[in-house]
Amino acid sequence: MENKSSYPIGVFDSGIGGLTVVKSLIQLLPNENIVYFGDTARVPYGPKSNAVVREYTRDDVNILLQHNVKMIVVACNTVSAVALDVVMQMSSIPVIGMIAPGAEFALKNSSSKQIGIIGTVATIQSKAYENTLLQLDSSVNCFAKACPLFVSLAEEGMFNHLATELIAKEYLTPLLQQKIDTLILGCTHYPLLKDAILKVTQGAVKLIDSGEAAALKVKEVLQQNNLLNENKDSPLLQLFVSDAPEKISKLCEQFLGRKPGAIRQIHI
Amino acid sequence: MENKSSYPIGVFDSGIGGLTVVKSLIQLLPNENIVYFGDTARVPYGPKSNAVVREYTRDDVNILLQHNVKMIVVACNTVSAVALDVVMQMSSIPVIGMIAPGAEFALKNSSSKQIGIIGTVATIQSKAYENTLLQLDSSVNCFAKACPLFVSLAEEGMFNHLATELIAKEYLTPLLQQKIDTLILGCTHYPLLKDAILKVTQGAVKLIDSGEAAALKVKEVLQQNNLLNENKDSPLLQLFVSDAPEKISKLCEQFLGRKPGAIRQIHI
Repeated sequence: MENKSSYPIGVFDSGIGGLTVVKSLIQLLPNENIVYFGDTARVPYGPKSNAVVREYTRDDVNILLQHNVKMIVVACNTVSAVALDVVMQMSSIPVIGMIAPGAEFALKNSSSKQIGIIGTVATIQSKAYENTLLQLDSSVNCFAKACPLFVSLAEEGMFNHLATELIAKEYLTPLLQQKIDTLILGCTHYPLLKDAILKVTQGAVKLIDSGEAAALKVKEVLQQNNLLNENKDSPLLQLFVSDAPEKISKLCEQFLGRKPGAIRQIHI
Repeated sequence: MENKSSYPIGVFDSGIGGLTVVKSLIQLLPNENIVYFGDTARVPYGPKSNAVVREYTRDDVNILLQHNVKMIVVACNTVSAVALDVVMQMSSIPVIGMIAPGAEFALKNSSSKQIGIIGTVATIQSKAYENTLLQLDSSVNCFAKACPLFVSLAEEGMFNHLATELIAKEYLTPLLQQKIDTLILGCTHYPLLKDAILKVTQGAVKLIDSGEAAALKVKEVLQQNNLLNENKDSPLLQLFVSDAPEKISKLCEQFLGRKPGAIRQIHI
């Protein structure tokens, strides 16, 4: 049987937020080749109907499959919430979404079982994290809050601005009043705002980065399937977007935590 | 010759921000029938390439033309900046964009000829307002600043929040230091933040609402073409979007300043 371990991991998102997941993957699995596709022509998916998100998801997965990926990471909470089955039906390779790993990791870290969830309006309205948490442990109490401004604040680089803290305080106070001990950052943009969030939660709450949780799950699944890449020779990170690669290179650097290299455009 | 004065004015935008322009139109021209199309399936246009914006613009205009509009108002700064010629080439009816009316109105109001311009990253990078102002009066000094967070703050309804003031102060201080006496609100979302902006500018600066300026121009052009609707019987406002009308009705109310009535979906 052909050994596919050197094949890349495919990662996709509606835009470039998913690069925080790539950052976590690279930290945990530095030997892996990665192909990333960001659908920057049609971002954001959150406000779109489920039918449209499922249609776009098919296009995104087809692009990754053309690159012979050995696994797919859905680095987009919206797609993970409403179209994970679409991704799974399109091939036989393993698929990891954002919701289940984040929910499992939160449960492991919570002792009070009072768990907060923040995300975009679409993710929170989908109740995807809540439903998954309750399936895993019916004694959990979930407290969810949409934080629509966090994406823009992250993209503006206002990581430590007083305005960001004020907005974080407004969003998070209702959750803190519920005495949560764990908070799921249910959006790939939010890890960039960790400092401002920590100032508001003041160490009382364990933050769950759903990208980090997904990376742990990726490692586990690659091991189970004997697909870990043992070749240490300069692993390749290939970045593709569906529109305007020249406009997003600086933002990509912030999300990825390093210079992104060439970003190529794929027309869809 | 057929009298087209009872035909509707067609208005379109990448999303629902253009409803602030509709609000201005209704205030100034209460007898007019209006058809609005918001391309909510593909919003925002700003980060997209010019080729994509021009392609989407064709779709939007075709939808309005199917409704027998007597005139088209491009209630979107991005389309006005990069695809106004596309709109004009598609029919012989009058077309009003956002840039020229806003620039002309700013010039009328400025005595120092120090004019500030704020808008999305795309609008500011296009230099559309600057170029138009300089064509109209080469002695003008323009000072432009992109305010990417303003759209999200407006959509979050944080009109009078301290965080909004802090962010407005950060964005506007460099312009105020240039002693501007006039500020063009070059984005259809920004009129919702007028109060916060006024707190920062403290009466020293005349704010130019580009939607109000466009409405004045619409009235002028309708008069010139003998197209003003004199029939005062309950004018019709028809709203169409390309995705998820159920998700945006509350937001539409904020932008329009009144209940929007039925919002219908058109698949594109």
